[in-house]
Amino acid sequence: MLETKDIGLRGVPVADTRISAVDGENGRLIYRGYDIEILAENSTYEETAYLMLYETLPTRKELEIFKETLASERHLPAGIVRHMKKRKKTAHPMDVLQSVIPMLADFDDAARMSTKGSQIKTSIKLIATMPTIVAYWDRIRKNLEIRKPDEKLGSAANFLYMLNGEIPDVQTAKDFDTCLVLHAEHSFNASTFAARVVASTRAHMYACTGAALAALSGELHGGANAQVMKMLFDIDKTERVEKWINSKLDAGEIIMGMGHAVYKTWDPRAKILSCISGKMAERTGNTKWFELSRKIENVVRTEFKERKGKEIYPNVDFYSPSIYCVMGIDPDLFTPVFAISRISGWCAHIIEEKFAEAQPKAVIYRPEAEYVGRYCGLEGCKYMPLEERE
Amino acid sequence: MLETKDIGLRGVPVADTRISAVDGENGRLIYRGYDIEILAENSTYEETAYLMLYETLPTRKELEIFKETLASERHLPAGIVRHMKKRKKTAHPMDVLQSVIPMLADFDDAARMSTKGSQIKTSIKLIATMPTIVAYWDRIRKNLEIRKPDEKLGSAANFLYMLNGEIPDVQTAKDFDTCLVLHAEHSFNASTFAARVVASTRAHMYACTGAALAALSGELHGGANAQVMKMLFDIDKTERVEKWINSKLDAGEIIMGMGHAVYKTWDPRAKILSCISGKMAERTGNTKWFELSRKIENVVRTEFKERKGKEIYPNVDFYSPSIYCVMGIDPDLFTPVFAISRISGWCAHIIEEKFAEAQPKAVIYRPEAEYVGRYCGLEGCKYMPLEERE
Repeated sequence: MLETKDIGLRGVPVADTRISAVDGENGRLIYRGYDIEILAENSTYEETAYLMLYETLPTRKELEIFKETLASERHLPAGIVRHMKKRKKTAHPMDVLQSVIPMLADFDDAARMSTKGSQIKTSIKLIATMPTIVAYWDRIRKNLEIRKPDEKLGSAANFLYMLNGEIPDVQTAKDFDTCLVLHAEHSFNASTFAARVVASTRAHMYACTGAALAALSGELHGGANAQVMKMLFDIDKTERVEKWINSKLDAGEIIMGMGHAVYKTWDPRAKILSCISGKMAERTGNTKWFELSRKIENVVRTEFKERKGKEIYPNVDFYSPSIYCVMGIDPDLFTPVFAISRISGWCAHIIEEKFAEAQPKAVIYRPEAEYVGRYCGLEGCKYMPLEERE
Repeated sequence: MLETKDIGLRGVPVADTRISAVDGENGRLIYRGYDIEILAENSTYEETAYLMLYETLPTRKELEIFKETLASERHLPAGIVRHMKKRKKTAHPMDVLQSVIPMLADFDDAARMSTKGSQIKTSIKLIATMPTIVAYWDRIRKNLEIRKPDEKLGSAANFLYMLNGEIPDVQTAKDFDTCLVLHAEHSFNASTFAARVVASTRAHMYACTGAALAALSGELHGGANAQVMKMLFDIDKTERVEKWINSKLDAGEIIMGMGHAVYKTWDPRAKILSCISGKMAERTGNTKWFELSRKIENVVRTEFKERKGKEIYPNVDFYSPSIYCVMGIDPDLFTPVFAISRISGWCAHIIEEKFAEAQPKAVIYRPEAEYVGRYCGLEGCKYMPLEERE
């Protein structure tokens, strides 16, 4: 059996939190006390971001001010846009995000302040500007003129407008908004944990966010949705699903987007995303990706049950590609789109870590590692001067 | 008593490692089997970096090739230098590092390859270019002409040359080289741990390094040496030491650079650094910072013993400021200078994590957190529609 230290801290509580709860047994995800289904159905991304930062849902007045502030903070400093225009067009959007975010610190006098108010202010800047960076970069690399943020639009509609150059219809904006709500927070996954480790050193919010983005860029984490799209492209036709999936399962490979480390039943986010994807396919007539995804889901679940006698369920990364694809979002933007939502959860975690809001005190992360290497000198392996080494 | 989850994983083994061992009880630090004192005395930084990446000390031939490769990789892509020249002159060097490192991925075809060979290649690029970024930025922000890397010089001498515009004398270069050896690696501190969390997602080396830099930028971690310098500037005169230290201790504040989470006796690096600082003061006649540091050390140790009945010792950040200051390195470069050495340890850890070199398998970090927030719906706190919130 593997020891604790061999399983990436799975099952090891490293902190208390008041931000979210993942109930893997019952398929529940709770943000600050509210079940995700209720928020997805009734609240916008802006309300969710407010909930993350301020711990309660806003009143109408508070929401109005929060939305105005977010909308007014969407612009990027001219120096950053100039930098992006000079950058190699082949740069990966996640690399662009990781380098532009620390640059924002150059322009933020509050970056190195240590009050909670300053951290909230910077959080709002991050939530407001990250979508702009992603959309600008996509248009810059495609040699399209950038579309400046439109203050009249909400976060979701504004992002799709900046990206595609057209204001989306109301239902598409609403669907994308729900996607943002669903991706906003998920407790101590690798990116959030990385942000908290960095926050524990008292680094500024841009540094903490950069670390979270770095973790999210990994193919085992935020990169999973792009891998699902790759699978959809690979399979391409519903009649090819069975053969493709079986050959992967025969080779002992995992199917991206299926199964979850924590959920032992339906991931509540996947259920909602599957529903959005289905309705969107119906509404737009672009049914290919949804039908392909559904077929894959069915085949994987049937095969898994037959082969292992166990249930497996889609996770949050399984149906989002079929939605984003129809919305005109390129596959290599799926992870950045994850980030423009998750940034609100990260900010909440960074603040909770820095101000020890859920715990008696704030301490820098400094785990142990067991040394299993050699000991020279003690066991006969001596230091040899360079001249004598062969 | 605080629980495990309240103490930043202190004492909790999260992995096995073959890279280094910290024996806090006996004040020993071991890199890949070799005691730090032996390496500091006999090996250069290049040998140490080789040891980190390849697990053994190089032969003369291997070292020659490694040094040539490092020297040939020091140049920055022109696009990056252009970016740095356009940047706000007030940008913090750690923010510059954090944004430039992910940009290097634009220029590295091996960045997204997953072989060990490609990771070693990228590691060499990182070890070679990071000093260039730091030195270039310092000259750019001071409106000085940049000094291109000199292939004839070793890592330590070349950095001081690029920074100060003059080739350092042999002893200064040797002392700086020893500083680099001493800072190269220190097991699972916050920055290394952040790098490993990110590596566990399979993100590329630039992303992992960015996260490590982010953690190092925190004032409780790599920022500590700059804080020590601030204290030296603040106190300024040896006759002011006692009053200053006592007022801090009376207020319950900690003295930066004194004490260590792991070492219960002398930090072996501090001992060597104290010795270098003393000899350097004598050699250059610039004795102020060493004498001030020594006086502070003595006062803190005496007071600590009297007040708490315990010994306290200087750590690695205590004597390096007095050395770097005499070498003409600005205080806000102390943390970046830490980074240009530690990058070799980080690279070794990223590779060990990705290829599960010390463990049975590689798993993404995904710790637990205990939810201590509210549950609405369950306990009477219901979702209120926006219109009804007040």
